[in-house]
Amino acid sequence: MADDIQISEQRDDGAYALAKDLVQSVLDSIANRDAEELHRVLDPLHPADVADLFEQISEEKRAGLLTLWRGGMDGDVLSELEENLREDVIDMLEPAQLAEAVRDLDSDDVVDLVEDLDDSQQEAVLDALDDADRVAVEQALSYPEESAGRLMQREVVMAPSHWNVGEAIDFLRNQDDLPEQFYHMILVDPRLKPVGYVTLGKLLGSRREVLLTSITEDSFRTIPVDQDEEEVAYAFNQYHLISAPVVDADERLVGQITIDDAMAVLDGEAEEDLLRLAGVGEGSLSDRVVETTKQRLPWLAVNLVTAILASLVIAQFEAAIAQLVALAVLMPIVASMGGNAGTQSLTVAVRAIATKDLTGSNVWRVIRREALVGLINGLIFAVVMGIIGAVWFSMPLLGGVVAVAMVVNLVIAGLAGTGIPVVLEKLGIDPALASGAFVTTVTDVVGFFAFLGLAVVVLL
Amino acid sequence: MADDIQISEQRDDGAYALAKDLVQSVLDSIANRDAEELHRVLDPLHPADVADLFEQISEEKRAGLLTLWRGGMDGDVLSELEENLREDVIDMLEPAQLAEAVRDLDSDDVVDLVEDLDDSQQEAVLDALDDADRVAVEQALSYPEESAGRLMQREVVMAPSHWNVGEAIDFLRNQDDLPEQFYHMILVDPRLKPVGYVTLGKLLGSRREVLLTSITEDSFRTIPVDQDEEEVAYAFNQYHLISAPVVDADERLVGQITIDDAMAVLDGEAEEDLLRLAGVGEGSLSDRVVETTKQRLPWLAVNLVTAILASLVIAQFEAAIAQLVALAVLMPIVASMGGNAGTQSLTVAVRAIATKDLTGSNVWRVIRREALVGLINGLIFAVVMGIIGAVWFSMPLLGGVVAVAMVVNLVIAGLAGTGIPVVLEKLGIDPALASGAFVTTVTDVVGFFAFLGLAVVVLL
Repeated sequence: MADDIQISEQRDDGAYALAKDLVQSVLDSIANRDAEELHRVLDPLHPADVADLFEQISEEKRAGLLTLWRGGMDGDVLSELEENLREDVIDMLEPAQLAEAVRDLDSDDVVDLVEDLDDSQQEAVLDALDDADRVAVEQALSYPEESAGRLMQREVVMAPSHWNVGEAIDFLRNQDDLPEQFYHMILVDPRLKPVGYVTLGKLLGSRREVLLTSITEDSFRTIPVDQDEEEVAYAFNQYHLISAPVVDADERLVGQITIDDAMAVLDGEAEEDLLRLAGVGEGSLSDRVVETTKQRLPWLAVNLVTAILASLVIAQFEAAIAQLVALAVLMPIVASMGGNAGTQSLTVAVRAIATKDLTGSNVWRVIRREALVGLINGLIFAVVMGIIGAVWFSMPLLGGVVAVAMVVNLVIAGLAGTGIPVVLEKLGIDPALASGAFVTTVTDVVGFFAFLGLAVVVLL
Repeated sequence: MADDIQISEQRDDGAYALAKDLVQSVLDSIANRDAEELHRVLDPLHPADVADLFEQISEEKRAGLLTLWRGGMDGDVLSELEENLREDVIDMLEPAQLAEAVRDLDSDDVVDLVEDLDDSQQEAVLDALDDADRVAVEQALSYPEESAGRLMQREVVMAPSHWNVGEAIDFLRNQDDLPEQFYHMILVDPRLKPVGYVTLGKLLGSRREVLLTSITEDSFRTIPVDQDEEEVAYAFNQYHLISAPVVDADERLVGQITIDDAMAVLDGEAEEDLLRLAGVGEGSLSDRVVETTKQRLPWLAVNLVTAILASLVIAQFEAAIAQLVALAVLMPIVASMGGNAGTQSLTVAVRAIATKDLTGSNVWRVIRREALVGLINGLIFAVVMGIIGAVWFSMPLLGGVVAVAMVVNLVIAGLAGTGIPVVLEKLGIDPALASGAFVTTVTDVVGFFAFLGLAVVVLL
């Protein structure tokens, strides 16, 4: 069975998803307690793929894999695991295994690994490091969570800004331990303040007597060490940075951030916004049922309050509904269309706030535009739904009531869908987190009230 | 007024959003037709920031800015503009201006610039290029849209795989025109097939007699030229690539992709999923009212059909509602909770499909988990809502009916929220695009039917 698998194509043709037969052969090896076969299959995989595989199998299988795959679970795989799983795995590892796993990691990877662990686990990992690494990690942990200081690596390659290309190349060629990854040489003044950077490509392509300051990159930007990592990711994406020096409050060089870390942050922020907008705080497929239930419950509770609010509006019109049941049939349509239009406006606004495209300069124009879009779509669906309502119940006036309520609710949806996230952002609340509940409350309440209220006035 | 602005801080402190007074001073310059002041404010800005500013001002102001800011609108700014706006701007530029703007761009940037333009505009840009560039651009355009071939740059730095460090450095130092950006030297065999790559840092840090093949990077991966750009972005993020060689069907080197381009794709794909899930196909704040209305209309139309389907279910129970109006008051709560729970499951599933975490290996376990989560949350909210319903209308049995319907709908929500995107993905349909409408149809129909149907059986 396992012979069918070609290790050179662990992922389906070019699609990078874990091949089903690879996962199956791992499961078979665990079932057969065949450690040798397990090593044969897993060892050539990229740590990120091993982590994915680990996330995709069930909890019992994971324990089996950990026991069988002795020495395989190294620091790189631990780094790639989701936070929750990582805690589980660290709990399962013996102290000696853990020490061996983290000892090979760079200090910035250790920071990434331990920052979300609970105190006792963090202590266990720190104890496994030698003193120099431990101090480095503890210093990084002293920076605020999700800041540039946590993201950066301390290893940088710098040169005095008065050097020429020849001096720089000789310096690099005489260095014993250059960082694993670096793309720029950072130029600093005597106070260690970065004043520019030079790509290694330019260095290699320029004559020896050329001054470094004459071949610096335009893209040069420094990042304050306490800057939020979301802002860092934005800067990398906006300005096409590959790496950027990190500076302390005195503008002195303390480290550098490279684009691969910024890309991971950007991806994480996009996921966070997506899940928050859907009322899923955080959460992944490998969470346990109890965890997932707990994560989703608060949002459903908020929605229940919202829905009850809307029902209270309906309850004010019980007499009208008893008199004309068609109202009960049509009222969800008005509310639903409003909710949908509101979500459209809301999502565009939340994204635009995240990409800094919705600012104080254009907020009023955007709100006006959204209201106008709501008005036009409202009018279109008012005609459609007015005709359907009038024909369905043979009541032209009922059609008219649906139509007017539709226009009102879609305009309100545009206003609320843009206004609410903007106001939340001003108040310092993540608009992705809270806007949805507010907007649907507004569109439900307005939808039911406009439709039923108008019906009472016009029809009864 | 304009003197208040410090050009060195065009963006609010570390937050990178365009400062409001900067935008204001640009608007003032346009109003005063003060070209000199406009150049003073805009010229030091990064092209991406100019593009953002351009997107944030109104349509009339844009025309004014283009007229006044002669020579400022260069190819870099054009590249950073949103697609729709870019078309408008290119229409406004005179052929000579356009030619000057694009002539300085690298051929891969020109490809990015022209690929979404209509034919006549594409022709205008291509005409502005010299013959060599034109051929390069046309060749890139011959690759499928959104493929690695469109994303890559043709300029690579390669070396025969048998070279040592000294030969490589001498070669680089004797080259006249090295690419603007490159981070690796790609090793090729005599058939031009890439077999590994070496970072420039390793090259600079190794002794001259070291063989290149002994210092290659583990992260080496080639990208097929016809691979979807979404897969390319995934590979960069998953495997922490900085650059990757692109190969044709014969595995011959044809170009390279760098991480900054992959990051932009990743960001674009995340935006696409977010907007599609919200029923906004595409769209940005700078689109005109008519365009925005058109983009949102189809999704609202789908939602109308969904809502009418749900209303048809309600209409089957008109007699019951007439008899007990409390049903009309409570029924939206059951539907709304189902819709919310369904959206939670759906969003987690869509994201997991995008990140390749939901695969054939774990799909059944995930579906079972979601149903179980729905069951537990369903039971919790059944108790809450059962009590509320029973007390509100002083009818214990009504509370029981709400409770049972709640459990049923939340289990169905979990199943539909996971199952529907998985099936759509299998059918080759983007689950982000279509799942939402299906899932809410299911939860609305099931919610109303379970609640009203049960009420008829139990209460009437």
